[in-house]
Amino acid sequence: MMPNLEIIPIPSYKLVEESDDLLSILEESLGASEMEFEDDDILVIASKVVAVVEACIVSYSSIKPSKKAIELAKNAHMEPEFAQIILDESNGNYTGAVTGAITTFNKYGLLANAGADQSNSGKEKIILLPRNCKKSAENIHKRIFEKMKKYVGIIIADSRTTPLRLGTVGCALATYGFLSILDERGKNDLFGRPMHITVRAIADQLATAAEIVMGETDEMIPFAIIRGFPMIRISKDEEMDLNTLISPEECMFIGPYINKPNE
Amino acid sequence: MMPNLEIIPIPSYKLVEESDDLLSILEESLGASEMEFEDDDILVIASKVVAVVEACIVSYSSIKPSKKAIELAKNAHMEPEFAQIILDESNGNYTGAVTGAITTFNKYGLLANAGADQSNSGKEKIILLPRNCKKSAENIHKRIFEKMKKYVGIIIADSRTTPLRLGTVGCALATYGFLSILDERGKNDLFGRPMHITVRAIADQLATAAEIVMGETDEMIPFAIIRGFPMIRISKDEEMDLNTLISPEECMFIGPYINKPNE
Repeated sequence: MMPNLEIIPIPSYKLVEESDDLLSILEESLGASEMEFEDDDILVIASKVVAVVEACIVSYSSIKPSKKAIELAKNAHMEPEFAQIILDESNGNYTGAVTGAITTFNKYGLLANAGADQSNSGKEKIILLPRNCKKSAENIHKRIFEKMKKYVGIIIADSRTTPLRLGTVGCALATYGFLSILDERGKNDLFGRPMHITVRAIADQLATAAEIVMGETDEMIPFAIIRGFPMIRISKDEEMDLNTLISPEECMFIGPYINKPNE
Repeated sequence: MMPNLEIIPIPSYKLVEESDDLLSILEESLGASEMEFEDDDILVIASKVVAVVEACIVSYSSIKPSKKAIELAKNAHMEPEFAQIILDESNGNYTGAVTGAITTFNKYGLLANAGADQSNSGKEKIILLPRNCKKSAENIHKRIFEKMKKYVGIIIADSRTTPLRLGTVGCALATYGFLSILDERGKNDLFGRPMHITVRAIADQLATAAEIVMGETDEMIPFAIIRGFPMIRISKDEEMDLNTLISPEECMFIGPYINKPNE
């Protein structure tokens, strides 16, 4: 029986800055919300605050746009410096541009502008994605366990758009400590017929649920706790076997443009 | 201040069948869960049970696959009859196939197999998407208000996959009674800089949060209540102005393949 889920926003007690320690910010913010972790809570952290404390930030003035960046910037209606940062962050792996977005591939998947973001970054600065979200998730999990003696699943979450739909949903850049994909292939449906393609993107679903309470503009809510999810704890070794990304050829949105069926 | 959200699964007290009345099923199921609606709850309903009570079901034996369907079925490694149903349901609007999925366009967006589903449908039968989810959402909203005197927002939800990612998340096929897109363009970020591209897909986020507790295989949980979301009630006239779909040209995933930038 699935229990009720609770999604609890934890506002930051201060604006997060480059020199800050994320666990200290979290502890103080929990205190201000009069909250404590319970075992098997899931903590969702906005990737942006991870990037800020890890100083994954570049300033416009340090950037010299290439000819390629100038051309892409024109197609995407953005500043050439921003396009250059996107090219650098994606190692040049992009499919093209629409207004406001260059569509890129990197280790975090297929995403707008390689995750580089001008919002909430201050003038003349761009916040990039954290260098290694998996490592950051592992660190925060371990430090919470050491200090608070609670086993907490971690999600580092970002926003994404979905094909042909208006607006953003959540996405898990990395997880730590729990099974993030629920593979139901082999399970039976209501009529006892085996399910063939059902794999549930648990971590993306939880990241999205957290995004509902975290907001995106000036709410200053970089954390959310999800309580009541029947999380399956996994060890590091098991975690390493999981891959939440599929290849472009397998992807129903991109695959058809790569492997055109015979006409 | 954003309150805590609660996501409450409501299992069906029986297996939903073609002759059933959805409001009666809901009432009995709420009773079995000892739950009552509160004003401004959001009720998420699995599109599959809407399709079943509306008899949006076809049987394999009634289908004669065309040459096109046979060819597409080969590319997608599926039965030709299923490919024919997908072609019919999408009016032939598809981008191509990968293993297990033909990628189609219809009024519900860009989706696998036009939403036609072999799971939980019984042998030799395929469940289609409901014909008019907007109308179905409006009906259930009005009937709940008449019988229970509570103002409840409605989402009819389906599963979707996202580009390059493994697993399904939720998607709102239709909503009724509340603002389903939160447009934050024009709002300021933390540094007072206007946000340019932030539009939050509230209904998709809520559909996804509900999917966490609803599951997909044999859990028989076609309903979930979301409590605590600061929903903005809207009238029918306002609702009609909203469109949660964007054009393929604007879509960062599909647009680049349609409008290739100058190389």
